[in-house]
Amino acid sequence: MSISTSLPRVGAEARAALFTDARTTYAFADTPVDDATLTGIWELARWAPTAANLQPLRVLYVRTPEGKERLLPHLDEGNRPKSASAPVVAVLAVDNRFHEHIPRILPIRPQMKEYFEGDSAQRDSITSFNGPLQAGYFILAVRAFGLAAGPMGGFDAAGIDKEFFPDNDWHAVLVVNIGHPAGAPEFDRLPRLEHEHVIDWV
Amino acid sequence: MSISTSLPRVGAEARAALFTDARTTYAFADTPVDDATLTGIWELARWAPTAANLQPLRVLYVRTPEGKERLLPHLDEGNRPKSASAPVVAVLAVDNRFHEHIPRILPIRPQMKEYFEGDSAQRDSITSFNGPLQAGYFILAVRAFGLAAGPMGGFDAAGIDKEFFPDNDWHAVLVVNIGHPAGAPEFDRLPRLEHEHVIDWV
Repeated sequence: MSISTSLPRVGAEARAALFTDARTTYAFADTPVDDATLTGIWELARWAPTAANLQPLRVLYVRTPEGKERLLPHLDEGNRPKSASAPVVAVLAVDNRFHEHIPRILPIRPQMKEYFEGDSAQRDSITSFNGPLQAGYFILAVRAFGLAAGPMGGFDAAGIDKEFFPDNDWHAVLVVNIGHPAGAPEFDRLPRLEHEHVIDWV
Repeated sequence: MSISTSLPRVGAEARAALFTDARTTYAFADTPVDDATLTGIWELARWAPTAANLQPLRVLYVRTPEGKERLLPHLDEGNRPKSASAPVVAVLAVDNRFHEHIPRILPIRPQMKEYFEGDSAQRDSITSFNGPLQAGYFILAVRAFGLAAGPMGGFDAAGIDKEFFPDNDWHAVLVVNIGHPAGAPEFDRLPRLEHEHVIDWV
């Protein structure tokens, strides 16, 4: 019989705040969110696992009127009022040159830096899976700080990349409005799939 | 001034259990995990958001000796002892026919079912982003139940699909070992990127 390490469970309040009660938010109050909180969201999300610890996700926080003015034209028209109302809009991006950090983040296999440098298809494989994986962690980390998240896929990614990332190799994958909700949600929650449709057993 | 709704924050203990203290686990104790807990993990993870509520992730729970015997040959050799030691191995897959559920999960736009039926590239776009996004939620939901997760990308996806999903259109994207850790982690945590390398501001 092997020795089992006991891990703490997360209680009902935290589960509700992160999963069962939390709602995607479309209209935000003008209550500000400070930069230290925004840094803290990343510093929480970053501890969840990625393939070979490669951590390809990057975050552009847009929270000035000038920044909003540059961002809004690249969002689908129906999404602009949502982002206009949010005190902060996070553009989540993947860094196609994530491998440059390998000597520090994967010190047990520093030679992987050269491997990825020479194989852009392998880099794409890492970013296309681990970017969205980290986006999931990020959305829950936003909620952990008592803030509402409004993730949106409707935007011109190439337009955002050109506007904000001309000097590096970041590529926008998700836009997340962040702030405090203005009032209650406007409609009931959409249904989730029952486990019979999702889980199989062997 | 708009009215702001106050949301609960998640405390230090839950943050530690989900993010800052949790470790990827490679060796598991033989303490069993019951099926009700495994169903509960899905029923927690499913509430986090997906694009248009489409929820393409599926879960195959492998927890019998017969199931393990069918799964292990399709894992990279170095990963087999990890999954052999885990009381449960979850194969996370995306369902390329997720759109069949649209009349129930997106009742405000039932016509999207026909749209996706006719456009397999759009289906791929949904599954390739939202599958990993939901995998992130799933890993944190495992931890919420006081269990350790050991996600692994090293496996033969086509082999797993052929072995377990011959009759539907599920495609394996991640294998996650689940259970109680056998003793303390074997090595120190790998470093995470500092915010200076990840966050940009406008």
